[in-house]
Amino acid sequence: MQKLLKVAVIGAGSSYTPELVEGLLKRVETMPIGELWLVDIEESWWKAEIIYGLTKRMADKVGSKMQIHLTANRADALKDADFVCSQFRAGCLESRIRDERIAAEHGMIAQETNGIVGYANACRTIPVALEIAHEMEVLCPDAWLLNFTNPSGMVTEAILRNSTTKTIGLCNVPVNMERGAMELLDADSDDFFIQIAGLNHLVWARQIIHKNQDKMQFVIDEVLAGNDKMRPQNIAQFSWSEALLKNMNMLPCSYLRYYYASEDILEKEIAKNSQAVNRADVVKAIEEKLFAVYKDENLNEKPKELELRGGQYYSESACKIMNAIHNNTGEIMHVNTINNGAISGLPDDCAVEVSAIIRSSGAHPLSVAAFPEDTLRLLQTMKTFERLTIESAMKGDVETGLRALTINPIVGTGVKLERALKDTLIQNAHQLPQFKPESFEILQG
Amino acid sequence: MQKLLKVAVIGAGSSYTPELVEGLLKRVETMPIGELWLVDIEESWWKAEIIYGLTKRMADKVGSKMQIHLTANRADALKDADFVCSQFRAGCLESRIRDERIAAEHGMIAQETNGIVGYANACRTIPVALEIAHEMEVLCPDAWLLNFTNPSGMVTEAILRNSTTKTIGLCNVPVNMERGAMELLDADSDDFFIQIAGLNHLVWARQIIHKNQDKMQFVIDEVLAGNDKMRPQNIAQFSWSEALLKNMNMLPCSYLRYYYASEDILEKEIAKNSQAVNRADVVKAIEEKLFAVYKDENLNEKPKELELRGGQYYSESACKIMNAIHNNTGEIMHVNTINNGAISGLPDDCAVEVSAIIRSSGAHPLSVAAFPEDTLRLLQTMKTFERLTIESAMKGDVETGLRALTINPIVGTGVKLERALKDTLIQNAHQLPQFKPESFEILQG
Amino acid sequence: MQKLLKVAVIGAGSSYTPELVEGLLKRVETMPIGELWLVDIEESWWKAEIIYGLTKRMADKVGSKMQIHLTANRADALKDADFVCSQFRAGCLESRIRDERIAAEHGMIAQETNGIVGYANACRTIPVALEIAHEMEVLCPDAWLLNFTNPSGMVTEAILRNSTTKTIGLCNVPVNMERGAMELLDADSDDFFIQIAGLNHLVWARQIIHKNQDKMQFVIDEVLAGNDKMRPQNIAQFSWSEALLKNMNMLPCSYLRYYYASEDILEKEIAKNSQAVNRADVVKAIEEKLFAVYKDENLNEKPKELELRGGQYYSESACKIMNAIHNNTGEIMHVNTINNGAISGLPDDCAVEVSAIIRSSGAHPLSVAAFPEDTLRLLQTMKTFERLTIESAMKGDVETGLRALTINPIVGTGVKLERALKDTLIQNAHQLPQFKPESFEILQG
Amino acid sequence: MQKLLKVAVIGAGSSYTPELVEGLLKRVETMPIGELWLVDIEESWWKAEIIYGLTKRMADKVGSKMQIHLTANRADALKDADFVCSQFRAGCLESRIRDERIAAEHGMIAQETNGIVGYANACRTIPVALEIAHEMEVLCPDAWLLNFTNPSGMVTEAILRNSTTKTIGLCNVPVNMERGAMELLDADSDDFFIQIAGLNHLVWARQIIHKNQDKMQFVIDEVLAGNDKMRPQNIAQFSWSEALLKNMNMLPCSYLRYYYASEDILEKEIAKNSQAVNRADVVKAIEEKLFAVYKDENLNEKPKELELRGGQYYSESACKIMNAIHNNTGEIMHVNTINNGAISGLPDDCAVEVSAIIRSSGAHPLSVAAFPEDTLRLLQTMKTFERLTIESAMKGDVETGLRALTINPIVGTGVKLERALKDTLIQNAHQLPQFKPESFEILQG
Repeated sequence: MQKLLKVAVIGAGSSYTPELVEGLLKRVETMPIGELWLVDIEESWWKAEIIYGLTKRMADKVGSKMQIHLTANRADALKDADFVCSQFRAGCLESRIRDERIAAEHGMIAQETNGIVGYANACRTIPVALEIAHEMEVLCPDAWLLNFTNPSGMVTEAILRNSTTKTIGLCNVPVNMERGAMELLDADSDDFFIQIAGLNHLVWARQIIHKNQDKMQFVIDEVLAGNDKMRPQNIAQFSWSEALLKNMNMLPCSYLRYYYASEDILEKEIAKNSQAVNRADVVKAIEEKLFAVYKDENLNEKPKELELRGGQYYSESACKIMNAIHNNTGEIMHVNTINNGAISGLPDDCAVEVSAIIRSSGAHPLSVAAFPEDTLRLLQTMKTFERLTIESAMKGDVETGLRALTINPIVGTGVKLERALKDTLIQNAHQLPQFKPESFEILQG
Repeated sequence: MQKLLKVAVIGAGSSYTPELVEGLLKRVETMPIGELWLVDIEESWWKAEIIYGLTKRMADKVGSKMQIHLTANRADALKDADFVCSQFRAGCLESRIRDERIAAEHGMIAQETNGIVGYANACRTIPVALEIAHEMEVLCPDAWLLNFTNPSGMVTEAILRNSTTKTIGLCNVPVNMERGAMELLDADSDDFFIQIAGLNHLVWARQIIHKNQDKMQFVIDEVLAGNDKMRPQNIAQFSWSEALLKNMNMLPCSYLRYYYASEDILEKEIAKNSQAVNRADVVKAIEEKLFAVYKDENLNEKPKELELRGGQYYSESACKIMNAIHNNTGEIMHVNTINNGAISGLPDDCAVEVSAIIRSSGAHPLSVAAFPEDTLRLLQTMKTFERLTIESAMKGDVETGLRALTINPIVGTGVKLERALKDTLIQNAHQLPQFKPESFEILQG
Repeated sequence: MQKLLKVAVIGAGSSYTPELVEGLLKRVETMPIGELWLVDIEESWWKAEIIYGLTKRMADKVGSKMQIHLTANRADALKDADFVCSQFRAGCLESRIRDERIAAEHGMIAQETNGIVGYANACRTIPVALEIAHEMEVLCPDAWLLNFTNPSGMVTEAILRNSTTKTIGLCNVPVNMERGAMELLDADSDDFFIQIAGLNHLVWARQIIHKNQDKMQFVIDEVLAGNDKMRPQNIAQFSWSEALLKNMNMLPCSYLRYYYASEDILEKEIAKNSQAVNRADVVKAIEEKLFAVYKDENLNEKPKELELRGGQYYSESACKIMNAIHNNTGEIMHVNTINNGAISGLPDDCAVEVSAIIRSSGAHPLSVAAFPEDTLRLLQTMKTFERLTIESAMKGDVETGLRALTINPIVGTGVKLERALKDTLIQNAHQLPQFKPESFEILQG
Repeated sequence: MQKLLKVAVIGAGSSYTPELVEGLLKRVETMPIGELWLVDIEESWWKAEIIYGLTKRMADKVGSKMQIHLTANRADALKDADFVCSQFRAGCLESRIRDERIAAEHGMIAQETNGIVGYANACRTIPVALEIAHEMEVLCPDAWLLNFTNPSGMVTEAILRNSTTKTIGLCNVPVNMERGAMELLDADSDDFFIQIAGLNHLVWARQIIHKNQDKMQFVIDEVLAGNDKMRPQNIAQFSWSEALLKNMNMLPCSYLRYYYASEDILEKEIAKNSQAVNRADVVKAIEEKLFAVYKDENLNEKPKELELRGGQYYSESACKIMNAIHNNTGEIMHVNTINNGAISGLPDDCAVEVSAIIRSSGAHPLSVAAFPEDTLRLLQTMKTFERLTIESAMKGDVETGLRALTINPIVGTGVKLERALKDTLIQNAHQLPQFKPESFEILQG
């Protein structure tokens, strides 16, 4: 008889969890779960309870025998787990809302995984993520940690470099690119190949092959003509520059507009911000609606409203990768894993987001053809931003944080930056025990 | 109806061809061949005719409708081909026998793909291989060139860097490692993974995973204990050094004994040579016997004697890769292809021998964890030997050849080397039109 | 008797020339000049004539026997020259004024050697500079080309990579740093050492040693305390960020504020621009005054007013390096020359600005300790900007120009950038024969 | 009044010391010594006493007031020293004689600083050298350690990477190249420039300039024609290969024959060894004669016999560099110092032997043009040998030692190597406390 798996979900109060549960229930044949542990903290307990109720109703509906637990005691959930899905948000949505507001007030791009908001998020999140990884070293040394917690690239790298816990980071951006390109080409997965490479939220499609034909230029032309099937729903519509894209022979992900059109985006955000609405506010409103729906005692399946939330495919990716590892399928997925030379010009020990085959031994990245000089510089610069941010987050060091942000091309520089950083650190101080508040004084403003 | 494929075999008079034919006939369902073109030159025509006869008898036996052609006109065979298997030997076996004798006389290792014999072989072969590749650019630009011609690594690199013809090099060394390790672990391919990386005839197994367990140390210990299932039959028995291997955490291929025990091998060869027998002589004797068998009008299948020949699995690899490309299977094979960062520390544009997934778009190498410093140096040094040899072979430049050989650690240095090189070049002169005989005079001896 | 030297000055109508003449006349003992050739084009002829008159009066005053020529025929001046000083400005000051106005109108930093103004300047200048270098290959193959023409780093690299003419680029920024630090430390050159490294207008002092003591932190603290002796006069006053500089252990040149405080500078420029005054306008006003003074038939020496011009020490550097080469002195100067590994992480074949010993064989750079990761990224990114700009300037390629500017961190991105670039190219079109005007149409705006 | 310097000499019983003393006494004006401390250990005490006597007589002769001390207490000598010359030989000449005999018995090149003899020497020496460096950190943190102790490259690197003591390594090989080339060109130092680059005992002249002319090809042609003025006296006569050298555009040092003609040398050594004489035996005989001369109470100057000893210029280099540091002269010397990118392709933190300007702040290497691929591989491979040897010497690890020797191209491989290494380790065991004798058992033989 097949071994029954134990799966733990950290941050189970997320509105995405029903999608994950649906996925697990669907795969009962190939990947039978014995125990599902939902973990959350006090601040999100009310949400976690709603999710717990819905999860039980969903399991009952399909006659699943899986045991379902809700706990605030992480150790119970981790003990002997096979897979741990990390999807918590340090400081909850309120912190993100606050940080995005500060960024906007200082005239800066407010983006959860990048810039000054991403920096603050990393400082709050990385210490917690490392705590979990270190606990797993003891409680479930053979388990896989599947990280969805943002900023996913930095969190994954921090764990890969500081823990022996086996870790893979996932993101829905490459999945959206893959699905969009397939739709555009009317392809099915048998005769389609897309190679993704870069850093989290900073990837390009490097190859698109359909029925043995190179379709890169075709897809680029479609995208330039306005086709945006590859765009995730949580990213605003956008026109790419023909002069930039036409002859690039690779296709940037939607997030690259933050680099290739940072000022255009900033202008729009500033306009929007005058109406006091930002992405985090939008997300919060959607979430409130969703949990109202989840609470309904008659609901026993994933509701359609979830699709509006934006991060669709996150949870599906989680199920797909658990299955690929458990059954050693060797299928190609696009994951955050250790570089080890997959992308030339980036450090061997850093996290990259690349196409890889997934086996029981983990992710084996496909190697990537050399990036053109300008795009490699962008990757290297942003990797340095990430590494200095990780260092700042782990040491609680303000000056390293300032140097990280200074070289980030989508962040302002000079006095404006120091003021925004100071404001951000002061308002985050209660969530950043690793920083000494008096160290903020060196910043101008 | 499925398109019928056209396959051309350059150097069809090889004793391996019946294995290839057997493989093609077996795959009639997934990879239906419309035309099989056997190509050879005058010197080998008698052998090619024997093969042609046997091939027709083998096809008849299984009721194949495939058209079979024998020709000395390469263009007819290449025109609109889908796959071209290159397995010719420039200068035939006689040249190899002569070169190995010269090496032995000068007290040097006589190895067909390395050292001074490999250098001479490269100088004879590379111009012909490039000629074929350039013809394919015109006659069958969409075809795949599958190169088995030795020295396979250098030939493949010369083509990859100087032609647009799509090329993959193959060798039976990694296949022997894979099969040996599977036998040793009693594994089947579903739950087994081996990652191979290095240069042709200079690879290591970097990962061996069975049922989700890392089996590298287990296999190393077995090999140290004398288990040599991973050794190809044409390589002599050998004991690895415990001090060297025990803690290496990777497993060298059999050919690495040429580096790790060059003097032990040299001593044995010198001893053997006093009996005037070398590998090429052995091969010649086997070949003569084989062709006697092939001639038999009653023979209509691959005879068992072929297995003694040594390079078994060559032809099976050819069939397997044609199938993987034709049907876009994505299976993992170990091939010579362009590095593009797969192995950090080697040039992006060089040929490496690595595990890759095979799709209709070709070979996508898995990236390789950093090599330990000493093994990386060996790879880099031998790659420089290869690149200088290719340069010397293409330009007909003696001094570049001497510099190539001087840094090759299994080749002697100084006056001894110059004498051996001079002797080799003089005796090969008629087969090396790109060299000016007067340029040999700069060499001592 | 010592050989008399022939010196040619390209762009002799520059207001700096009297300083150069003064320097040459002072060195009559160690570096006797036989012929001084002043070269200029029609647009600047009136200035060149004024300079010619003043030069003759200056030479007469000190009783020099040097022959002085004014010519519009470059070949006469280059023929058998020993040293060629290139200080021309392609398109004269009017082009710079125009380009700076366009940049300002589009809300961008208007800086002669960087950003969109530097890009336009490079496109106008590099083809002319290469023409001169190629003429020198024929007319004076042993001569040294001393380049002061801006953008000096890119011009020097374009020549180093595309011509065999021996070339060294010079800039007064490192000289100002050296003199400022010496003044600050009350040091004289016997017991003082400063090592400069980076790219033109993007250098750091990497070592400051006085009387065998490391004085880097002392100088940093002084600079943070407001001491700005190291600032060239043409750069506005400025306070460095303590958080950024305090623990950097190297000292940025004044131009680094364009990177470390680009938004602060931009704000100031935008404010200033509303008063319709920019740097080029200021320079033009100074120049007009200077030439009025130079015209005075009674003036026979370099007038004091020249010191206000900003680029002081340019011409002194020219004399110093001619002397160092001519007399093989081995003294340390800070020059633009080929990298060859002096700065790790930048290409071997690129131009860097580094401390070097100057001998008759040219500049031998001192090697530079590894840059911290964030500063290396900035150097690499800006070098890529420079290389893509050179490529765009040589090929007349708009898209390469857009990619160059897109990764430059002090330049805007997106629609804003495309509009500014389109405007710049259209208004420069008559000076850019290598570009096809219809190719500008791909740009938005 | 000028500060009087304190100089300590570790290993003062060396036969070279009188040359050093002569040099110090000559420089009384520019570099006045207050105290000279001669240090040695019990095994060499009789020699040190002879040197002490001769030193005092030499000082008296010229009326020096310098205080001269002989001590076995190293701390007394190091306390507040300005310069420390390390010239000890761990295990004395007897160990070298023994190791060279073992190597010869196993048919291997017997060379004090390389191969298996160099490995043994490194294992004996590095722990002692580090002990001295660590004492200096405490007793004289501002002092310079000038290392002459062999294997000089590895000893210098071990200290540079493991101690904060300021260290420069010196060798007479580059000095011999410089002097030989100057003699050959009849040049004096004013108009001559030679750039040396590589590793200790593995350098090339990369530039030779005389009177502003590139003289590299001229010198190469002279060397090929038999001129061997650049050869140190302790290296046997030798003809270079024309095919190798003619178009190399750089000039190898004499020790490179160990790589470029290892087998020729080995043959000669084996022949010589049959007469039971090796280099160490020759040195011992010379030394015995020298000390007989030194003892003579009437001798009060450096005797002529010392010139036969071979390492001439060692001590002169010591005096020259002390003077250059003390007086901040900026002159060019060829020294072992930290790479920091001077040679591209070698690690930043490794020791290289390069031309550098010497100032009070130490050695500032000139950067070096890229090495041709084959020579870079040799440098990289030998640097890996050095680094693994240092690791083995510091950890007492046999397997790392075997891996080091295995990739060294002048050392045998396989069983032959393991036997030689085992024999060497067993016979050295009493001098290698860091190794566990039972760990030798893993070696074959």
